[in-house]
Amino acid sequence: MNKQLILEKRPVGMPDADTWKLTNNPIPEPKEGEVLIENYYISLDPAMRGWMNDSKSYIPPVQLGEVMRAGTIGKVIKSNNHPKYRVGEVLTGWGGVQQYSIANGDNYYPVDTSLAPMPTYIGTLGMPGMTAYFGILEVGKIKEGDIVLVSGGAGAVGSVVGQIAKIKGCRVIGIAGGPEKCKYLTEELGFDGAIDYKNENVAKGIKEHCPKGIDVYFDNVGGEILDAALGRLRMHARVVICGAISQYNNTTAIKGPSNYLSLLVNRATMQGMVVMDYAKDYRMAAQEMGGWMAEGKLKSREDIYEGIENFYDTFQRLFTGEKNGKLVLKVKEA
Amino acid sequence: MNKQLILEKRPVGMPDADTWKLTNNPIPEPKEGEVLIENYYISLDPAMRGWMNDSKSYIPPVQLGEVMRAGTIGKVIKSNNHPKYRVGEVLTGWGGVQQYSIANGDNYYPVDTSLAPMPTYIGTLGMPGMTAYFGILEVGKIKEGDIVLVSGGAGAVGSVVGQIAKIKGCRVIGIAGGPEKCKYLTEELGFDGAIDYKNENVAKGIKEHCPKGIDVYFDNVGGEILDAALGRLRMHARVVICGAISQYNNTTAIKGPSNYLSLLVNRATMQGMVVMDYAKDYRMAAQEMGGWMAEGKLKSREDIYEGIENFYDTFQRLFTGEKNGKLVLKVKEA
Repeated sequence: MNKQLILEKRPVGMPDADTWKLTNNPIPEPKEGEVLIENYYISLDPAMRGWMNDSKSYIPPVQLGEVMRAGTIGKVIKSNNHPKYRVGEVLTGWGGVQQYSIANGDNYYPVDTSLAPMPTYIGTLGMPGMTAYFGILEVGKIKEGDIVLVSGGAGAVGSVVGQIAKIKGCRVIGIAGGPEKCKYLTEELGFDGAIDYKNENVAKGIKEHCPKGIDVYFDNVGGEILDAALGRLRMHARVVICGAISQYNNTTAIKGPSNYLSLLVNRATMQGMVVMDYAKDYRMAAQEMGGWMAEGKLKSREDIYEGIENFYDTFQRLFTGEKNGKLVLKVKEA
Repeated sequence: MNKQLILEKRPVGMPDADTWKLTNNPIPEPKEGEVLIENYYISLDPAMRGWMNDSKSYIPPVQLGEVMRAGTIGKVIKSNNHPKYRVGEVLTGWGGVQQYSIANGDNYYPVDTSLAPMPTYIGTLGMPGMTAYFGILEVGKIKEGDIVLVSGGAGAVGSVVGQIAKIKGCRVIGIAGGPEKCKYLTEELGFDGAIDYKNENVAKGIKEHCPKGIDVYFDNVGGEILDAALGRLRMHARVVICGAISQYNNTTAIKGPSNYLSLLVNRATMQGMVVMDYAKDYRMAAQEMGGWMAEGKLKSREDIYEGIENFYDTFQRLFTGEKNGKLVLKVKEA
């Protein structure tokens, strides 16, 4: 049987336990040209919250009654004359929160599990890592000596952003929640400084750590932290808008950045990004990042929980921050 | 004697009549290498409000007791061995709200009054025109076929932005206050449409006039109009942050754009600009714009008031919108 998590209702604010329903259905059969994939790990990402809203965005919303969308890694266990993928191949893609998926192969990518463990392929070598790579290099346009600030610094995206910026010769300050995460940034990942937003005044922290201001701010959180960062931009600064986790469960209007006129004063740029635009270069990025991992310059940490029935409890950790690294749910034994 | 307007106190909110004081002082003597300029016209611009705040910005604030900063046009009436400018030359520059200025020539430019009347050189061929030119071309990066929306569309900057966009083959919609100004945009300046923000719902108006969305939004006003425009961006749209006149007299925090996540969804860019960065190319821009004016493709309209003692009443028109075109104060007979 195939355990599947179905979107039952559209949440208002933070999703509750009734938002999804776990069902048990027969394992489907692949049609001509399709494969059946057994999913082992599911990626839990803040963006999932946005996909649940019935509004125009960069991707259609998950419909009520559909399997909840999620990034996955799994193995092809049956092929109905698929032109490319054979039984035994390990693929990442959009399998959704379920134990078995049918796919025609679009937006799936084969991975080599002898080079990195499966969870890494939905983390640092998957969408979050790609987001970090293209966001900080293509949108942030970092160069040696830049002062880089990243929020969600201990998260799946932010931790990679900061490490890539260090590899490129920048000074890097991360914002994270709690002393443990901050210690992780400076002692494990080599960040030059960390600001604990749960226990410190962020604006003051930025001023102390970046007395000359910020060249690049990579924003995963929005809200007051975005405002604090805007208040410290240097001339020609770049602000990368990757996400706004502090605002995703709002029941009122999103808080706009009150300090946005800092863009004018500093001739700065604020630019949004969506990782899917860079799909044609994923392979190149994964190779480069894989190289950095092999050299020990890029570290990856996954926080893995088990059991599809624990999806709801695990999902909440995205927003409470009670996790250490990339949040992953194991839904089947590999 | 030299009538001068002195900044007496820092306003909170909208400046009142006690903000400045008119004084009468002897006409100063130029020192070695300086010139004495008789000022005829003074440019009134929304940016002046920002220069009165004691806060870090793109230019130092006007200090209490100093002559109020303003763009001017006047004639050299005395030269103390100035290396470049001679008696009789007409110059634009930062003469301030006074009848006579002393200058060493920095940031002054000679103009040819046989090609255009003096007020045009502090309007369409002066700072506002330069702001429009570099803002829409260099920051907005317009190309043929783009859908361009401009707020403050009947103002000194916005009216030029829209006309340049028309010259470049864009579809142009302006936002302005009142039916007269809207008629001016469509019937005189050739805009494709106009939205009357004083009598229409702007978000609805944008939807009607730009059913496919906006490629470039040139913002002079901020506030709710910026939010409405952000809500209708097309993919890879550019938002030029030139000003935020709706927020300049706020006594509470500036309203940040609640819809800024549209930048993410649409991979769009919001960029600030300050015209002074383009000083080395002013001459080239003035030549090109002068050519367009001669061909009748670029129209200029100045609304001229008289008398330095009427500065305060005239200044208020910037914020009430009770003006038709570029606001100019004549302070002396040429």
